Amino acid sequence: MTRMAPRKQQEIFDATLRLVSEKGYDGLTVEGVAERSGVNKTTIYRWWPSKAALLGAALVEADVLEFDTPDTGSLRGDLVALVEAVIRLLTEPPASDIAVAALAAAVRHPELDGRRFFADRFAREREIFERAVRRGELKESVDPMLIVDMLAGAVWMRAVFRGLRVRDDFADEAVAALLDGI
Amino acid sequence: MTRMAPRKQQEIFDATLRLVSEKGYDGLTVEGVAERSGVNKTTIYRWWPSKAALLGAALVEADVLEFDTPDTGSLRGDLVALVEAVIRLLTEPPASDIAVAALAAAVRHPELDGRRFFADRFAREREIFERAVRRGELKESVDPMLIVDMLAGAVWMRAVFRGLRVRDDFADEAVAALLDGI
Repeated sequence: MTRMAPRKQQEIFDATLRLVSEKGYDGLTVEGVAERSGVNKTTIYRWWPSKAALLGAALVEADVLEFDTPDTGSLRGDLVALVEAVIRLLTEPPASDIAVAALAAAVRHPELDGRRFFADRFAREREIFERAVRRGELKESVDPMLIVDMLAGAVWMRAVFRGLRVRDDFADEAVAALLDGI
Repeated sequence: MTRMAPRKQQEIFDATLRLVSEKGYDGLTVEGVAERSGVNKTTIYRWWPSKAALLGAALVEADVLEFDTPDTGSLRGDLVALVEAVIRLLTEPPASDIAVAALAAAVRHPELDGRRFFADRFAREREIFERAVRRGELKESVDPMLIVDMLAGAVWMRAVFRGLRVRDDFADEAVAALLDGI
């Protein structure tokens, strides 16, 4: 099977994520994605055998949900930048409509393997902590996943579950709570 | 309108939450709740004008999602107990199936007002922080909601989004990250 052109692939992911955000997971169909993206249904099925596989791939690989791992020179700077990226992802439309809808769908539908999205992002976030340990900013005994989960989880709670505005100093305050203690 | 017997009300909430966990929000109907709970549909509509209102009330008032605000005598003890309660809520079936399904539905359906659930719980969690400030364990400038969101958000990330087992020392470690710094 030859490789699909990256731009075409992104158009398919884009159509998939937009349909989920508009109609929910139940309203997502490969037919709908075909229509929206202008790619033949058979071609889509050849690459992704089900709508779950397609949405799972879109979560991990779509440019709209991408963010670069920050490298600011300090643990504090990196964590603040990471939290700010999560805030943008969960609060700035259209990416936020897409991200929130797809993540909420992943909770209800394990077959779409939303875990892969978090595992993929975490594999890259680890670098932040490895650099911090090398610089002597962090004890090796600290669990990096716990730090990521407390910071990203706080943004999800505040912005999505509580539906409250995330204040400008949220990232600074959350990171300070961990680095300086409360 | 006379008051509904509390036990009858809990049976209606229970039927509502179980239906959401089995069939999702789209599959929830007041008819289905009437059938499952043995309460007349007209009676249910008299109290809750829509399935959104019914599920919103169930989230806040159902016994199955209830937890007592801990009062252990120390901030550390209270926060560890709070995290352990959230871990139980999100990982121990049947409550966890119900809680996760209802919270995920609230993300997609603002009309069911999941925010009320979090506002209601936070109104009670505030006590933990007021007592800690009085005991001199916490600066008054610390934002209690930030602490709750980092702790509860971390459990959601780990147990629900990542689908990983929450280790026995998770509550101790998360609270220590905040109280002792990382």
